[in-house]
Amino acid sequence: MYGTLYGLGVGPGDPSLLTLKARAILEQVPVVAVPVSQRGEESLALQVVRQYLQPEQKTLNLFMPMSRDQAYLERSWDAAATELQEHLAGGSDIAFLTLGDSSLYSTYSYLVQRLQKMEPGIKIITVPGVTSFAAAAAGLNLPLATGDEPLAIIPALKDPATLKEYLPLFPNLVLMKVARHYDAIVEVLQEAGVAEKSVLASRCGQPGESFKRDLVAGKGQKQDYLSLIIVKGGGQP
Amino acid sequence: MYGTLYGLGVGPGDPSLLTLKARAILEQVPVVAVPVSQRGEESLALQVVRQYLQPEQKTLNLFMPMSRDQAYLERSWDAAATELQEHLAGGSDIAFLTLGDSSLYSTYSYLVQRLQKMEPGIKIITVPGVTSFAAAAAGLNLPLATGDEPLAIIPALKDPATLKEYLPLFPNLVLMKVARHYDAIVEVLQEAGVAEKSVLASRCGQPGESFKRDLVAGKGQKQDYLSLIIVKGGGQP
Repeated sequence: MYGTLYGLGVGPGDPSLLTLKARAILEQVPVVAVPVSQRGEESLALQVVRQYLQPEQKTLNLFMPMSRDQAYLERSWDAAATELQEHLAGGSDIAFLTLGDSSLYSTYSYLVQRLQKMEPGIKIITVPGVTSFAAAAAGLNLPLATGDEPLAIIPALKDPATLKEYLPLFPNLVLMKVARHYDAIVEVLQEAGVAEKSVLASRCGQPGESFKRDLVAGKGQKQDYLSLIIVKGGGQP
Repeated sequence: MYGTLYGLGVGPGDPSLLTLKARAILEQVPVVAVPVSQRGEESLALQVVRQYLQPEQKTLNLFMPMSRDQAYLERSWDAAATELQEHLAGGSDIAFLTLGDSSLYSTYSYLVQRLQKMEPGIKIITVPGVTSFAAAAAGLNLPLATGDEPLAIIPALKDPATLKEYLPLFPNLVLMKVARHYDAIVEVLQEAGVAEKSVLASRCGQPGESFKRDLVAGKGQKQDYLSLIIVKGGGQP
């Protein structure tokens, strides 16, 4: 009598980039679950779908903090998975929301893994969504990759120097969450001679969306947390 | 008085994975353009959106062959771009359809590049879509990547041995269009000890969709043209 868990990728931020399937599910489920990284904060994913929800639908805020303490993270994910399980055990269907795609850099993956262990027969339906980098490329009318070219997605460089290993292998790269090491990343791109072919995209599909082609001019400035760089001109195997 | 060109990613095949934005545009445009690789063939992208179209909407089949002859390809893209330009010059809005995402491995990119040169002021709006590999991961309830892990998208290996260069750098890889070199690819994955952690997905989001966890058992068999492998367990930088 368990309810079904739906994992919905709601796209990068523009509510019109939701899929028809995700909207249809959102209109049916009694409970919408969202990850919140600070208690009391409103989830960005929830804002995206707000217009498709009815007042009688319940929101379940799951506390999933950002931290570098792996043990603390795992305890938080365990607690969130247990909270989901309790609601599902009551027979309620739940839609868990993820910005972008549900299978890419989402806390949803940690919950699925735990729920499958806790209740092996549990019904889980994942619905894919549009990624932030696909929206960035679309906003620029720029290909992410064409023909036989590979594409590297690098979520968050701990050490910008590792970028030097990827550049010779990939004509196209997407560097996500670049704000923290922005200057160092741009320096590596300058050394490789590809800074001028690359583009900075911030807040794709959201209010305040911006695209900047002059990466060097942005050095020394604070970049938005939701910023990515599409790199062109890297080496080809 | 030029019409607007819309580049719509229609998703992997399941019509419910279209975005709300793409459907709204489809319901407005007088002309829907689709690439066809063989004259007379019905476009798969057109089949996906067929239910959202009205009889009065015109279909424009653009001949965009598959070939290894680069000069022939470029002549075909030039001719298709000219055909689009003529319709746009008549004031007609056109939606060009791409399976998956419009910025990733789409002939749309070649047309945009040409139209921007032919008519620099032309209005082009690209709408991103759900990729086949996001749909594959969703169908398997499997993450494409989590945390700080990079992800490599490799569209079509000319030489399966080059996979050995990518594997040590990427814990997660998506190998697209694997049918041609299937056996050789699986052998590289076996040597690297990751074949058992990888999954073969065919015809994602389309009739006949299948997922196979035993890649080795598929050796010696003909694989569907629309097959990809999600590789897990590669090295991490």
